[in-house]
Amino acid sequence: MKINDSLFQKLREIVGKSNCSREKEDLACYAYDAAAQVCLPDAVLFPKDAEEISAILKLADAENFPVIPRGAGSGMSGGSVPVRGGAVLVMTRPNRILEIDRNNLIAHAEPGVVTGHFHKAVENEGLFYPPDPASSEFSTLGGNMAECAGGPRAVKYGVTRDYVLGLEVVLPGGDIIHTGVQTAKGVVGYDLTRLLIGSEGTLGVITKMTLRLLPLPESVKTVTAFFDRMETAAETVSEIIRRRIIPRTVEYMDNASIRCAENYLKIGLPTEADALLLIEADGTEAETASAVREIEEICLSQGAMRVEAAKTKADAAKLWKARKAISPALFQYAPDKINEDIVVPRSRIPDMVRKIRALKSESGLFVASFGHAGDGNIHVSVMLDKKNRAELRKAEAVIDELFDYTLELGGTISGEHGIGVTKSPYISKEIGEVELNLMRKIKAVFDPRGILNPGKIFPK
Amino acid sequence: MKINDSLFQKLREIVGKSNCSREKEDLACYAYDAAAQVCLPDAVLFPKDAEEISAILKLADAENFPVIPRGAGSGMSGGSVPVRGGAVLVMTRPNRILEIDRNNLIAHAEPGVVTGHFHKAVENEGLFYPPDPASSEFSTLGGNMAECAGGPRAVKYGVTRDYVLGLEVVLPGGDIIHTGVQTAKGVVGYDLTRLLIGSEGTLGVITKMTLRLLPLPESVKTVTAFFDRMETAAETVSEIIRRRIIPRTVEYMDNASIRCAENYLKIGLPTEADALLLIEADGTEAETASAVREIEEICLSQGAMRVEAAKTKADAAKLWKARKAISPALFQYAPDKINEDIVVPRSRIPDMVRKIRALKSESGLFVASFGHAGDGNIHVSVMLDKKNRAELRKAEAVIDELFDYTLELGGTISGEHGIGVTKSPYISKEIGEVELNLMRKIKAVFDPRGILNPGKIFPK
Repeated sequence: MKINDSLFQKLREIVGKSNCSREKEDLACYAYDAAAQVCLPDAVLFPKDAEEISAILKLADAENFPVIPRGAGSGMSGGSVPVRGGAVLVMTRPNRILEIDRNNLIAHAEPGVVTGHFHKAVENEGLFYPPDPASSEFSTLGGNMAECAGGPRAVKYGVTRDYVLGLEVVLPGGDIIHTGVQTAKGVVGYDLTRLLIGSEGTLGVITKMTLRLLPLPESVKTVTAFFDRMETAAETVSEIIRRRIIPRTVEYMDNASIRCAENYLKIGLPTEADALLLIEADGTEAETASAVREIEEICLSQGAMRVEAAKTKADAAKLWKARKAISPALFQYAPDKINEDIVVPRSRIPDMVRKIRALKSESGLFVASFGHAGDGNIHVSVMLDKKNRAELRKAEAVIDELFDYTLELGGTISGEHGIGVTKSPYISKEIGEVELNLMRKIKAVFDPRGILNPGKIFPK
Repeated sequence: MKINDSLFQKLREIVGKSNCSREKEDLACYAYDAAAQVCLPDAVLFPKDAEEISAILKLADAENFPVIPRGAGSGMSGGSVPVRGGAVLVMTRPNRILEIDRNNLIAHAEPGVVTGHFHKAVENEGLFYPPDPASSEFSTLGGNMAECAGGPRAVKYGVTRDYVLGLEVVLPGGDIIHTGVQTAKGVVGYDLTRLLIGSEGTLGVITKMTLRLLPLPESVKTVTAFFDRMETAAETVSEIIRRRIIPRTVEYMDNASIRCAENYLKIGLPTEADALLLIEADGTEAETASAVREIEEICLSQGAMRVEAAKTKADAAKLWKARKAISPALFQYAPDKINEDIVVPRSRIPDMVRKIRALKSESGLFVASFGHAGDGNIHVSVMLDKKNRAELRKAEAVIDELFDYTLELGGTISGEHGIGVTKSPYISKEIGEVELNLMRKIKAVFDPRGILNPGKIFPK
């Protein structure tokens, strides 16, 4: 149901007058995420802790209105968009790093901590939290948990799920539960922790987390390789893995991405290159030096036009700035973007890169591809004007064919962005009906009345 | 219900005459695991593939008899014991390594593959599958998945769950499902893969798996340090972690374990030492050499009596033989063993070691402690004669106090053995009623009639 005056009054009593709103301008601010679908909520709430969230969810369960948890709203698949109205639960207030435990290499944190702040805080202690979505300067740990965020370093270090030991979670009925452990190992009962990670805010609201940390690598070195054929770059990625070298990142940018970033930043990227690889090795000084030599040698022997090792941290930072700028900078070409994050087996990257080239030339649309080639995770951005119906139909056909080919190669339609609303029409391409029904029943176990983030993941 | 003649006839038609039995001597062979509880099944089946298992589970679901999947029966918590009779599903026939894919660093395998064979096969390709339970010479990959097996290398490399990308699973109703991905990343739908890992054969029968591999480290070096006080050894473990060194193993043996292994193997272990640490570093030649120097220095500065680097692979193998012999060798002291695998935060290992010493002297029982100190996972073995009621009561009191103290330190009652039947009376010490009820409901989603491995995990 709609949040009427009496319900809003009750919500206001829970979170306090200054932590809720029904003003149009506030609703508009929390009506969209990075997938750019817009749906106004009925109310916006800024709860401070698990107790308040529990009270909100109890009320929602009793009165049957949707509650949509949201971190920084940087999600790429509409996961935090209130598609059926209801109350958006903005999780940015509980934003303390509760403890960084150097003796046990763990940290306790609240969901509103910005991931990039967390990186800096643990690095100040000589420790390392590898998951680094491109949004890390603004996305939150809670959002990262909900989507199982990845990022460039996943090729060596894995994704968010690999760094979560335990959670505090509020269930739709208002129960506050604790999952997992605070220790390096633990196998007591079913793995509720990993069931919640990547569940896109549909099973519970994460209110605290225990994260696993690593020692900070002593040295990081960056190599850039430019190629005159994107296929050669793709083959080089496969060859690096075949040679059993696992750099900490192997990022790929096609010509469209290079031009887009250069046009936006003017930092001297060679816009004539058909593709670029941005490769980082980490470890001890000696290790990174030897890895860099080997990577340079492979790139050259595979046919790179030019290979450069970043001389200073500032040089490397400039390259990363270019890489991270692509996604926002693409809007210089068209008002709308359809952004997918397919993954293929690493050896099939050359096939995928050829397919993307073909789709681009067939459709005539501006298509940029870039991303985490080291783990086969390619971001394909199709630029268009959604108001132009013909363009939209073409773009949808491109996505359809892209997903089919991804699955044909043994891949998956989402490596790190999740399903949300934008990919839910496609989920049945990958997940069978029996498996989807299991997931629906698990959803019903956690949320029998369907109040938490409804309209996500599952196809209509 | 019991498996009567007519049901057994139907089962025989599914698996073939030579792949099932009701003979007493066969039933006796599959009535126990390493937890040494004995319950006779009604029948033993040796299915060859998912289709046969599907037919068996359909029949079981319709006729309501228990089915208990079982690998090599080396589980430590009674997970494969047919406590309510029914058909034991011996999963050793589907035992092929289907593919080792060097280009993508993955492998596809069937559940009956012996873990140690799998290690050798991937190592022959220059690849590495880190999970290495002490039982790896006989335990199977399927059993390892079901229990989320750990082992010594978990301190650096994590546990089984960290190396499983996807599964083929037969559900109790007979449906054959596929979970997860074949790629490095994937976030499409709920994480059924990790929900199944560690579910102790209560949610589905794993019939195929896609595993993640790493490049094989170039070099492994082993250091042994002897201590005259177990507390000093425990403090040394904490100090290594505090110094942000992550060896690939940090194994601990107390004096009882050292004497036990020496008595069994006669390999010249110093039985006067109060404790021993067995530490391995891996990486490039240069890295391991430098790690070994640093580890030796820490051990000595913390007060080790003696520190030795293994000179040859044979020396190192001898030490590992001693470590792996402890568990079986303990039976020289008493006919029965209660073996727990608690985990505490690494910095609390010294507290735990003191507690174990106190429990030992208070109870007068033979208690050996050893295990994966690097991740806080200590195996505590209480030796006794279970027929002696007074001893049994004392042992149970020791376990009770051990678990309480473990949880007080922020630990967990099982790091890698699972709950099975032996720890189910204790699970409520760690898992709250709300969380347990969620797990019960998840069980009911997968197995509404409760035919799959009943009587496990959940307290009566």
